[in-house]
Amino acid sequence: MSRALELALRGPAWAENPQVGAVILDSDGRILSEGWHRGVGTAHAEVDALSRLARGEARGTTAVVTLEPCNHTGHTGPCSVALIEAGVARVVYAMADPNDVAAGGAERLRNAGVEVISDVLADRAAELLHGWTTAVRLGRPYVTVKWGSSLDGRIAAADGSSQWITGPEARADVHLRRAAAGAIVAGTGTVLADDPRLTARGSDGDLADGQPLAVVFGRRDVPADAAVREHPRGFVQFDGRDPAGHLAELWDRGIRSVFVEGGPTVAAALARAGLVDEYLLYLAPVLIGGPRLAFDDLGVATLGEAQRLDLVSVDRLGGDLRIIARPTAHADGPASDTNG
Amino acid sequence: MSRALELALRGPAWAENPQVGAVILDSDGRILSEGWHRGVGTAHAEVDALSRLARGEARGTTAVVTLEPCNHTGHTGPCSVALIEAGVARVVYAMADPNDVAAGGAERLRNAGVEVISDVLADRAAELLHGWTTAVRLGRPYVTVKWGSSLDGRIAAADGSSQWITGPEARADVHLRRAAAGAIVAGTGTVLADDPRLTARGSDGDLADGQPLAVVFGRRDVPADAAVREHPRGFVQFDGRDPAGHLAELWDRGIRSVFVEGGPTVAAALARAGLVDEYLLYLAPVLIGGPRLAFDDLGVATLGEAQRLDLVSVDRLGGDLRIIARPTAHADGPASDTNG
Repeated sequence: MSRALELALRGPAWAENPQVGAVILDSDGRILSEGWHRGVGTAHAEVDALSRLARGEARGTTAVVTLEPCNHTGHTGPCSVALIEAGVARVVYAMADPNDVAAGGAERLRNAGVEVISDVLADRAAELLHGWTTAVRLGRPYVTVKWGSSLDGRIAAADGSSQWITGPEARADVHLRRAAAGAIVAGTGTVLADDPRLTARGSDGDLADGQPLAVVFGRRDVPADAAVREHPRGFVQFDGRDPAGHLAELWDRGIRSVFVEGGPTVAAALARAGLVDEYLLYLAPVLIGGPRLAFDDLGVATLGEAQRLDLVSVDRLGGDLRIIARPTAHADGPASDTNG
Repeated sequence: MSRALELALRGPAWAENPQVGAVILDSDGRILSEGWHRGVGTAHAEVDALSRLARGEARGTTAVVTLEPCNHTGHTGPCSVALIEAGVARVVYAMADPNDVAAGGAERLRNAGVEVISDVLADRAAELLHGWTTAVRLGRPYVTVKWGSSLDGRIAAADGSSQWITGPEARADVHLRRAAAGAIVAGTGTVLADDPRLTARGSDGDLADGQPLAVVFGRRDVPADAAVREHPRGFVQFDGRDPAGHLAELWDRGIRSVFVEGGPTVAAALARAGLVDEYLLYLAPVLIGGPRLAFDDLGVATLGEAQRLDLVSVDRLGGDLRIIARPTAHADGPASDTNG
């Protein structure tokens, strides 16, 4: 299953379909073939792995898959049927399919006489697919709010200079996450002040293979010479007054994850609306002072109303810290987040 | 040496004398006796260890000490002479004595025919004594600025409520550090707003054995019913206009470490003056927003002027993070800190 989870990571992180990996084992536990899902319209991981075997070679084997084999005909046929038809004797999977449309594969396999073992390394698979399953459950893109700040919570000096608060390792990490995201969001204030490109770039400045859609929130016009107008995937502007509605429109365009990078107004609006799934803070060991902060007023009058989070991970990146946190008990719905 | 470093920690952390541990070994490397320094006026660690041996028993032994044996007659005689007179054959120490008055012990030992080995686990000893050696070098108390903040850099909600930003593990850690400090400093703004006791307490609320001196910076009167007036060691008030002068006065009272806990004005004044040796941040995974920050204006107009720090340690305490950072290249003097 560890190997299957590794294979899963080869697929696109934020496609409409989840990252899934599969391994086919013979009766001695040797790997006969491997597969992973490469994105919408291509073979699912199990079918990809089966396709590398000769006809009849899968008979009596064990298929190890990170996600419950689907029971649904979309761009491709149901994987459960493909496994049954190939004569696979046993299916081991990590986590159940959270998608109502696709679920039911395990039952179908059992009904066909296939031995089914579930919940193997389920926690690791759940973390791998956390963003995707959250998006599917909520029916909107997974929203990550990212900011870089000093130890005293400032995102820029008084004159607005902010380019080098964090070091090169943190910046490289941001670009990797941009490349994996479906869209990057910035407010018009940030566009006017910093003229960001909203692209994912390598350390050499070259554009990464994957590019997120550029999205601008706010009513002010994006200047004719703004860098975002040169974005390779173009940009979309929303007025920012209805964050939930804007996210719904992005979902309809196939966007499953949104990386929010720009501006205390946008960040606070999403946080107040309970629409943030993950906070990603790059914390630099520097003190700045002054008025420039990551979030505007969050409507928190007293400490009991503060938005409680859980630390998911804390890592050093060069001289900086990367801190990932998620709203506590997010599963209870957005309203509960502000009452922790 | 590891054992000697453990023993050193048994002594008071912020006395006028450093924490030192010593172990006497026989020719087979077995521990014959152990000693540590218990504070001003008591035996130094080596003499403490020697005193537990019978007359003549130290002859031909090896003394392992965390700090170079002193060559100075203060409250006690020079340890180098005590080791020579006891007939110790070999002295192993971790770090040289940074105090000019006391240094020279190694040379005196060598001149008396004692084998001397230095720099054993020197890094660990240096970190153990970092605060003390810094204070001795600068001739003023070691200054730690502590604050607790939300992930977005707020130290309180808009109404000032701040009691439970961080969890019980972080609060217990603060009280341990208060108990080890020579003095706790808060500004009059904090005294008037929060009425802190400025004591070190256990989890049951009882006073700890060691209590720091309570110090208030600021010109406003401390109210007659303020909790700090009940402090077991009393309190001292300075007007706050001359932080360096106030620290010098505390030094003259035997204070070797100052734990600054209260108020963005005091914290910013010390930081701007280059008088902070260590920043101690308890970071809670919570978002608050609004106007309440740990530091006022630090006089940083553009990012190049920001005060650069190095992360010393990052640890989880319950659900929170404890982050310790120190000014980069502090050894170059305070002026360099604001030009990193």
